[in-house]
Amino acid sequence: MTPVPPTLIPVIETTADPVLQQRLQQRIDTKTKPRGALGRLEALALQIGLILRSEAPVLHQPQLLVFAGDHGLAAQGVSAYPQDVTWQMVENMLAGGAAINVFARQMGLALSVVDAGVAHDFGPRPGLLSSKIAAGTRDASVEPAMSSAQCIEAIAAGREWVRRSPGNVLMLGEMGIANTSSAALLLARLAGVPLTEAVGRGTGLDDAGLAHKRQVLARALDRHRATAPLEVLAALGGFEIAMMTGALLQAASERRVIVVDGFVVGAALLAAHALAPAVLDCCVFAHRSAESGHAALLAALHARPLLDLDLRLGEGTGAALAWPLVDAAARMLSEMASFESAGVSERRPADLAPC
Amino acid sequence: MTPVPPTLIPVIETTADPVLQQRLQQRIDTKTKPRGALGRLEALALQIGLILRSEAPVLHQPQLLVFAGDHGLAAQGVSAYPQDVTWQMVENMLAGGAAINVFARQMGLALSVVDAGVAHDFGPRPGLLSSKIAAGTRDASVEPAMSSAQCIEAIAAGREWVRRSPGNVLMLGEMGIANTSSAALLLARLAGVPLTEAVGRGTGLDDAGLAHKRQVLARALDRHRATAPLEVLAALGGFEIAMMTGALLQAASERRVIVVDGFVVGAALLAAHALAPAVLDCCVFAHRSAESGHAALLAALHARPLLDLDLRLGEGTGAALAWPLVDAAARMLSEMASFESAGVSERRPADLAPC
Repeated sequence: MTPVPPTLIPVIETTADPVLQQRLQQRIDTKTKPRGALGRLEALALQIGLILRSEAPVLHQPQLLVFAGDHGLAAQGVSAYPQDVTWQMVENMLAGGAAINVFARQMGLALSVVDAGVAHDFGPRPGLLSSKIAAGTRDASVEPAMSSAQCIEAIAAGREWVRRSPGNVLMLGEMGIANTSSAALLLARLAGVPLTEAVGRGTGLDDAGLAHKRQVLARALDRHRATAPLEVLAALGGFEIAMMTGALLQAASERRVIVVDGFVVGAALLAAHALAPAVLDCCVFAHRSAESGHAALLAALHARPLLDLDLRLGEGTGAALAWPLVDAAARMLSEMASFESAGVSERRPADLAPC
Repeated sequence: MTPVPPTLIPVIETTADPVLQQRLQQRIDTKTKPRGALGRLEALALQIGLILRSEAPVLHQPQLLVFAGDHGLAAQGVSAYPQDVTWQMVENMLAGGAAINVFARQMGLALSVVDAGVAHDFGPRPGLLSSKIAAGTRDASVEPAMSSAQCIEAIAAGREWVRRSPGNVLMLGEMGIANTSSAALLLARLAGVPLTEAVGRGTGLDDAGLAHKRQVLARALDRHRATAPLEVLAALGGFEIAMMTGALLQAASERRVIVVDGFVVGAALLAAHALAPAVLDCCVFAHRSAESGHAALLAALHARPLLDLDLRLGEGTGAALAWPLVDAAARMLSEMASFESAGVSERRPADLAPC
């Protein structure tokens, strides 16, 4: 085992602050609307205020970092698509044609694509950020997906990409054929979810494909007995997943608002949470994915997502689609008038209520 | 009864078109994503393509019209807020301080406020569009809320406001103390939903207030036996609701995409649907409101909304919050690359699937 540098995992403090929380709730309750009438946006506004330590938070320069990596597990036929699709989709993203490009343009999100470990030589490609750890992980059904040193390098790189990014909002996306396999393994080991629940159809396996994927993953899980988070991540994770784990830790340590996408980003968050539980305070859950393990993953994190639209694309698309709701919650807090400032009557006192 | 002008209700044709539908589905299926991976956005994209008769639809100049009106029923103490809040909130909207202003600014929606019949003299107010039918409806628990002539005038005015609006997307919002009472009555009569289900807490009645509201509305429903849609709308509706009914009919007749807000807009849609069922083809349902009758209303229209965030504010806020999802669906269709155009491999043929 490579020794873990003492600074690899940042200190993350809880955002809890009872005094500020009370002030925020008071502010939300005196906006020109019936109490609670903005439903879940009100709790979201409160959370954002606590993360940014502000009664009038302004979200700015939201960043969407997409990490791409290949998986040795793909050789076992666990995906409906060939491994080449990983680099081809990276090219598609660089050309602006993927779903995440469309949504990022629409929503005004700065989109960056990071090669975390794609099994392809892109050469010097304008627009592609490079952190290639290796040309894909090894096959986790046979040996550990990566070495400890590689895992540490990936986490540190993820932290660094966030450190260099402006703004106070982070969204993550991923691209990697077979990465729902890696995510399912992490969910099984880190949260104790049975593989029958954790494993889904990914990009669209049929029944036979799903049964085969379960068999392969059961073998992988059986082979690796690690339970310590960093060892689990190294044995069963992916370069893009470990990099996202680092990115999540860094973002929370800087008190950025994190809009969490679906199943694979969720698996990276499971690892981050195992390393530093308070990371969750900064997380807003964008959506419930149609990938079958995602419900169990959200339950393990006690998370209630904003959207439920049967999405299962990855790339950060769910986070991008939820972004306007997150921004709306912050704007409600900072821009909406209060009953007093607008001269609107408050509700009738109880003693004037109808008999 | 004032005779109904033969042109009051426009002809609305279904958007069904099997040939275009097949072409749209083919186009959606060859975008660079697994089939179905964008979940409900894919069905939405199909619907938008059919409404706009285009394989590459572009939504432009989305309009949000907020109709405000007062209700004679308010005198019965059916709301937690005094009637003056209607005009005060109109002023708040004109000053840019209401929730709907915040969200419309954020989303780039053109917001217009129409006085459909507020019990207040605004004088000449820049920014306020006037269609005041009267200073509030009459008390529907005692007499018909409006005359046939007023109802016809309101529908025609609603159509005219849409006719004058640019763009191909319409959202509606409303402001009117006691208008969830009117909406509940319409839901009960037009869809046969029992009042116990149709009546909710509105802006926040307590248990005693809710019981009282149910009693008052039972009396109103009992007093008016009309079942023909226009007569029901006149007896139990509101000026802002009848105007929205006209607006919905006009928008559908022009094949605009209609993003339907919550309970009160839904009641206007029930009336429009009773007058011209094909109006539904153009409707996208934004959200499920926390107002208790809304679930029954959605069920009556076989509608599945996009969002479920416990909102119960009205003003069109739910529609505004859902707008980015609707726009995203259209952009997916018109901007995303196909497997062929991006040079991405399709899924592995079944005979190469794992054993």
